[in-house]
Amino acid sequence: MIPAGAPIDMTIKRLIPLLTEGDTIVDGGNSNYKDTLRRAALLKDKGINYIDVGTSGGIWGLTEGYSMMAGGESDAVEQLRPVLETLAPAPDLGWGRVGPSGSGHFVKMVHNGIEYGMMQAYAEGFAIMDKKDEFNLDLHRVAEIWRYGSVVRSWLLDLISEALAENPGLEGIAPFVEDSGEGRWTVTEAIDLNVAAPVITMSLLRRLLSREEEDYSDKLLAAMRNKFGGHKIKKEG
Amino acid sequence: MIPAGAPIDMTIKRLIPLLTEGDTIVDGGNSNYKDTLRRAALLKDKGINYIDVGTSGGIWGLTEGYSMMAGGESDAVEQLRPVLETLAPAPDLGWGRVGPSGSGHFVKMVHNGIEYGMMQAYAEGFAIMDKKDEFNLDLHRVAEIWRYGSVVRSWLLDLISEALAENPGLEGIAPFVEDSGEGRWTVTEAIDLNVAAPVITMSLLRRLLSREEEDYSDKLLAAMRNKFGGHKIKKEG
Amino acid sequence: MIPAGAPIDMTIKRLIPLLTEGDTIVDGGNSNYKDTLRRAALLKDKGINYIDVGTSGGIWGLTEGYSMMAGGESDAVEQLRPVLETLAPAPDLGWGRVGPSGSGHFVKMVHNGIEYGMMQAYAEGFAIMDKKDEFNLDLHRVAEIWRYGSVVRSWLLDLISEALAENPGLEGIAPFVEDSGEGRWTVTEAIDLNVAAPVITMSLLRRLLSREEEDYSDKLLAAMRNKFGGHKIKKEG
Amino acid sequence: MIPAGAPIDMTIKRLIPLLTEGDTIVDGGNSNYKDTLRRAALLKDKGINYIDVGTSGGIWGLTEGYSMMAGGESDAVEQLRPVLETLAPAPDLGWGRVGPSGSGHFVKMVHNGIEYGMMQAYAEGFAIMDKKDEFNLDLHRVAEIWRYGSVVRSWLLDLISEALAENPGLEGIAPFVEDSGEGRWTVTEAIDLNVAAPVITMSLLRRLLSREEEDYSDKLLAAMRNKFGGHKIKKEG
Repeated sequence: MIPAGAPIDMTIKRLIPLLTEGDTIVDGGNSNYKDTLRRAALLKDKGINYIDVGTSGGIWGLTEGYSMMAGGESDAVEQLRPVLETLAPAPDLGWGRVGPSGSGHFVKMVHNGIEYGMMQAYAEGFAIMDKKDEFNLDLHRVAEIWRYGSVVRSWLLDLISEALAENPGLEGIAPFVEDSGEGRWTVTEAIDLNVAAPVITMSLLRRLLSREEEDYSDKLLAAMRNKFGGHKIKKEG
Repeated sequence: MIPAGAPIDMTIKRLIPLLTEGDTIVDGGNSNYKDTLRRAALLKDKGINYIDVGTSGGIWGLTEGYSMMAGGESDAVEQLRPVLETLAPAPDLGWGRVGPSGSGHFVKMVHNGIEYGMMQAYAEGFAIMDKKDEFNLDLHRVAEIWRYGSVVRSWLLDLISEALAENPGLEGIAPFVEDSGEGRWTVTEAIDLNVAAPVITMSLLRRLLSREEEDYSDKLLAAMRNKFGGHKIKKEG
Repeated sequence: MIPAGAPIDMTIKRLIPLLTEGDTIVDGGNSNYKDTLRRAALLKDKGINYIDVGTSGGIWGLTEGYSMMAGGESDAVEQLRPVLETLAPAPDLGWGRVGPSGSGHFVKMVHNGIEYGMMQAYAEGFAIMDKKDEFNLDLHRVAEIWRYGSVVRSWLLDLISEALAENPGLEGIAPFVEDSGEGRWTVTEAIDLNVAAPVITMSLLRRLLSREEEDYSDKLLAAMRNKFGGHKIKKEG
Repeated sequence: MIPAGAPIDMTIKRLIPLLTEGDTIVDGGNSNYKDTLRRAALLKDKGINYIDVGTSGGIWGLTEGYSMMAGGESDAVEQLRPVLETLAPAPDLGWGRVGPSGSGHFVKMVHNGIEYGMMQAYAEGFAIMDKKDEFNLDLHRVAEIWRYGSVVRSWLLDLISEALAENPGLEGIAPFVEDSGEGRWTVTEAIDLNVAAPVITMSLLRRLLSREEEDYSDKLLAAMRNKFGGHKIKKEG
């Protein structure tokens, strides 16, 4: 597995002399679709196919099969059929060509944006229930109930249930959430397309905030409140 | 099926003289949990059990089984076991007692809040893909691919795929989204509990906005821009 | 000064026997306008005027004059003219009757909602500049420049400039922002009126978040990411 | 006045042969600061100073003076002093060097981001008051009261008051809000810097939404609700 970004370009550079016209390179990682467009154009000039296969499924893909969104020429994608059928959850399910070069990574990028939004929706809901002390809710039980028959049933909910079974109090887990590039790209792409995507955007911003220990904006707000209203400032430390 | 709100109170009033101590009333609708707390207390004084069963599953529940979150005394919930086992997706799945009176409706309320957030996340993602003309994406195909193996697979995604199969261009559907009370209650409850729930909240606000035809705030923004920057105002009509 | 809430009701109760028809009680605090409606109705039955005067200006009002929004019968407000003219920045500026009972507190509530949004807008902007290390910006200087001639000039900006002059690094200030009730009421009122107010709402949610030390939603997000992607969890402590 | 973007590059190209070492070009427009960095570097190689002067004040600057944030070498900015002193609201107010090349446009960009947030905060507040029919508020009067002594007094509020005096019902103004590039750049920059700026971001998204007539996400939400709950779809037209 080659990390997205510069290593891809280096690898392509090294592969070019080894390939001949009609050969195909597959990028199954989380590359930015704009890089993919650039790379596909470069390789097209040399008669080499460049297929982007946006791949979802995480560490479960190996056993459950991957969901794969392929971008590139139809013929070249068709050549990959045996590979894709093998990696997919079933030969005819969970994979397909979604469009020309770049579209596979584009669709995967949006997939991750949606993923951020869904995760945040669950996280907020469970946080509300966690704070409702008077009902003393067993959140693992709630997750289990919802897994069957409810409108919010999903694979992510299955994982939440599993996580809560193993660690009901989420002990020892820091409230610190990383983000990979794809959420950011989705947010920026939405703005570029003039599409308002408040939920995906807020999901990203919440992650940024989760990693901020000394938020400047909050300090300035506290200073302002002190200035106009004489509201006491909480001292640090 | 009795609609939530005043009709419930009237029905309870009519039922009281017909019931004797130890009898049970079940509210399986989308009542506000605060009403449920009030009603349960009233009936407890009369020795009548009041069980709130938050129920999810929509129009599919009849065939697929309902997801049911019960609130109330353990004994009284236990008495309902045969009913709940029958209505659930399986006798031992998709239902359970989540806590005391009110907790069933509380959990269902939060369920709907999460539902709003998930729906909005999908809606935004598909809107981004829809706007990306250069890839000319087949959104039904994308939904189908994601249904198997992807991180965002869910029952809601199954429904999206179905909707897009039947009406790929969403022809004739007005961009107008109703909301039932439960999303609002979730947002208010979160604030009351000092829980920041930006995604669930934004999902609600987007629905409000979808129904606004002559948004005052947008008009005032246009007027302001004209005032300070001489930016042209778009005339109405 | 009597704090808003129950103390007001107690004070009114004590005042009633001392007052005669045609007398006036003024509530110049930050009462919830719904309480004001209730109180005004109660007192109206006794022939006593209840005037709500939403008052802004903070600790500066004493020297600069207060901005006052009065609600109640025109005649009764008119009787207060000498008081209002004295407390206002100028006899004919910064005060007025805005409508019937309750409207003064309603308008003041919205004023505070706007205040939250403005403060957050400034706070975010200064936070962005603070993070831009490569320009090593002097934020007090920026605030000073903006105070004259810019579109964002305002009294709040004057205070920001002052705060940054006194404490350029905001040393010793915890990133912890209280909220009084009025922001919450504005958010809830907006939802009740079906008005989407995302900026005022987000300003409130950011304050809630500033006070959260062990955010459950962030922990659950970290747990989810670990579950599906094998992403490492940051350990607490 | 030369529009930002490519015309600037063309103009610079034309100016270069006419200039000699030590000469200065001033960009007083709303250029993206990254373009400015590039241009300043190009000109530095030729010994020409490139000063970016972020300028605020809109159409009022001519009479009230402009607020100007200059970026570039101190000496070169100092040479501009007579010009800046003349254009500013007062010789020693409303202008200054904020840092190296690019910083002037960067600070102006953030200024506009804040401006979006403030405008949206006001717009939402006035929209809430506009919807509160029972109080029948005179919004121009409210704006006038707030202009003196209130926490939300500002130049933008002065303009709002003026706009409402001229057109109290905002008649004939379409709820359609343009955005120039600077709001977008601020949002993207914030994300690049890992600063959560929800209010500035939401202000931008609301503008995008104001221009959307057939929102895809809303249609899909309506379709989903129909699918799972049998909720009626509103027909278009």
